[in-house]
Amino acid sequence: MNIDKLYSDLTLKTAAKLVLIVLDGLGDIATKEQGYVTPLEAATTPNLDALAKDAAQGRMTPVAPGITPGSGPGHLALFGYDPLEFQVGRGVIEALGLGLELKAGDVAARANFCTLDSKGIVTDRRAGRIETEVCEELCDLLSKKIKKVGDAQVIIKAGKGHRFVVILRGSGLEGPLTDADPHQDGALIPIAQPINEKSAKAKKTAKLIKEFYRLALPIIAKKKPANGFLMRGIAHKPTIPLFEERYRLKPACIAVYPMYKGLAQLVGMTRLEGPQTIAGQFERYLAEHDNYDFLFIHYKYTDMHGEDGNFEAKKKAIEEFDAALPILLQKKPDVIAITGDHSTPCALKGHSWHPQPVLLMSAYSGSDKLERFNETNANRGSLGLFEAKSLMRFMQANAKMFDKFGA
Amino acid sequence: MNIDKLYSDLTLKTAAKLVLIVLDGLGDIATKEQGYVTPLEAATTPNLDALAKDAAQGRMTPVAPGITPGSGPGHLALFGYDPLEFQVGRGVIEALGLGLELKAGDVAARANFCTLDSKGIVTDRRAGRIETEVCEELCDLLSKKIKKVGDAQVIIKAGKGHRFVVILRGSGLEGPLTDADPHQDGALIPIAQPINEKSAKAKKTAKLIKEFYRLALPIIAKKKPANGFLMRGIAHKPTIPLFEERYRLKPACIAVYPMYKGLAQLVGMTRLEGPQTIAGQFERYLAEHDNYDFLFIHYKYTDMHGEDGNFEAKKKAIEEFDAALPILLQKKPDVIAITGDHSTPCALKGHSWHPQPVLLMSAYSGSDKLERFNETNANRGSLGLFEAKSLMRFMQANAKMFDKFGA
Repeated sequence: MNIDKLYSDLTLKTAAKLVLIVLDGLGDIATKEQGYVTPLEAATTPNLDALAKDAAQGRMTPVAPGITPGSGPGHLALFGYDPLEFQVGRGVIEALGLGLELKAGDVAARANFCTLDSKGIVTDRRAGRIETEVCEELCDLLSKKIKKVGDAQVIIKAGKGHRFVVILRGSGLEGPLTDADPHQDGALIPIAQPINEKSAKAKKTAKLIKEFYRLALPIIAKKKPANGFLMRGIAHKPTIPLFEERYRLKPACIAVYPMYKGLAQLVGMTRLEGPQTIAGQFERYLAEHDNYDFLFIHYKYTDMHGEDGNFEAKKKAIEEFDAALPILLQKKPDVIAITGDHSTPCALKGHSWHPQPVLLMSAYSGSDKLERFNETNANRGSLGLFEAKSLMRFMQANAKMFDKFGA
Repeated sequence: MNIDKLYSDLTLKTAAKLVLIVLDGLGDIATKEQGYVTPLEAATTPNLDALAKDAAQGRMTPVAPGITPGSGPGHLALFGYDPLEFQVGRGVIEALGLGLELKAGDVAARANFCTLDSKGIVTDRRAGRIETEVCEELCDLLSKKIKKVGDAQVIIKAGKGHRFVVILRGSGLEGPLTDADPHQDGALIPIAQPINEKSAKAKKTAKLIKEFYRLALPIIAKKKPANGFLMRGIAHKPTIPLFEERYRLKPACIAVYPMYKGLAQLVGMTRLEGPQTIAGQFERYLAEHDNYDFLFIHYKYTDMHGEDGNFEAKKKAIEEFDAALPILLQKKPDVIAITGDHSTPCALKGHSWHPQPVLLMSAYSGSDKLERFNETNANRGSLGLFEAKSLMRFMQANAKMFDKFGA
């Protein structure tokens, strides 16, 4: 039987308030070089410790054993969607990360400027890593000259350095396409092709991308060093069942960085704009507590410092988070989950496959009698090791949102 | 590949004796109000403790993350059947609970007397909660007047208060049907309809239920306050692969309450009648040890006191169970599993989704070196967190009933 249908059939509407707090890339590993502690273990976290006494803990496999997720699959799983079933193309994620709002059916591509020789061979895939300002000028130029390809509107937005995003907005478009990127220097730019050759929409999209190249390349042909561009992750915004319908919870997102707002918006969460610090985000939570049933609060800095391999900074980011936590707890939500979207171990300087620790607290979570919330204690918690996509179901259960299954 | 077929292909017949002991609703949660202990942790259990030293422990997800099971799915999983695949209708469970024996294809409905006004509108869904004696009189009256509907035999049995069960026994019948119950006062009794509209058997069943109403309502029309009745959970006894064929184990059940005997019988276990106490059940086990390969022993009181939220009584029920345990151990079974069919935390006063602790002991279980059997230790056991439907396979493995898979 379809398990999502079963959950849906059993779901009751209640007055419970649920909060999901994501410390991006929270999980870490203990290594000899780090003195056998993780940043979460090394951090002074009196407020998390106080929660731990009355909470359950466990670890979550972000996607599948050994799989390292990007932010897209990591968050979709936290929102309760199977990240293997609901795949979001890199172009879409990149567009969301730049704060672009996508409509259903929009096709988005990650693009970057490159250097081509006179025969059109890629000689530098990153065009000497041009400055952001140069990228912005080139994007402005392209935007002014190209408003449409075929019947589709073209939206171009510069990112950082040599990176930008191209969106095609029109009817009958679909991804994914193969990359217009040789993935190495010394080759021509390949033509983007439909991955599903039977899709008429993908064929049309490929034709429009080809047309975009035909129009755009001459416009920048004389520029140096960026006289060409590559396009990758060409995909449409997928249709994802709405969070509110799926869980009978009215959701909102309080995030600082655009990508996470965008991911929340993909599943239909309201974006609450404004706060720029975790204290500000928690203050905003207090103000919005009565207006929503489910709040997703995103904290970026744990991941950022993990990516830099900066143990001390990651530890400090956790301590700053902990110091702000009492603000949120002024209005005690019925269910609180605190976790990461994946691990970003300092020793790896990047996302990883290691299951992230999770703390779950409600009047019905039970206490695992663990003094602190960290990776080692999470290994001993009553939640065990489970798939991140099930966290929403545990949160709903703790909110007493499920009727009994069978007599 | 079909995993059940694999298990079946690998299964060897051995002389091992296996015992599954279910303390209904055993699992609990530690809360501040309870001094951060569970009833199992608070109880004095020298005999369980002695077993724990040589046993493996773990926790089991009864059905799926966050799902709270009824007794039906809880036990089907313990018997090794996927409770999502093998669903047993509420009418069937209710009939089993009243000690009625169902044949394959029998359709059973939970029914209850209600009060109707002159227009047939339900004014009290429970007919003022009539006494059991009144219900029995009404059921006797209906039983005498209605022996058949169409070509199907009708069996009516009173339950407690306003509740009763109706069984249709005949050929070509099938559920499930929608409820003949408006689920609120102030409406007419809806006509039960096939849920699968393409099923000719369900159509026939719906026609017979309608006919039953046509015959039965006039018989009680002048009674007060119960002059009507509602029918819910109308379903047939499902076909479930026989336990003995599936596991090559000759099974029997020693339970006190009819529902658990009925659930055991659903999968083909022999019901051993008589004992009314856990000590009596264990004595009976000693007497039957040589006659069966697999004994399912059910203990109800942990669940009953959990449902009442009575921590002390649940703790005491565990202690009484523990005190009787040495009787069973006089004939040491090769494999012993002790667990619940789900958790019934006192703090919830009802069944819950929390994984139940399980203890598994055999000459090959290994020792987890845990001093006691309880929720906290189960979190740390070598069995980890697994689906309850796999317990039977671990029991078989511990009985050395599986050939090696592959070379």
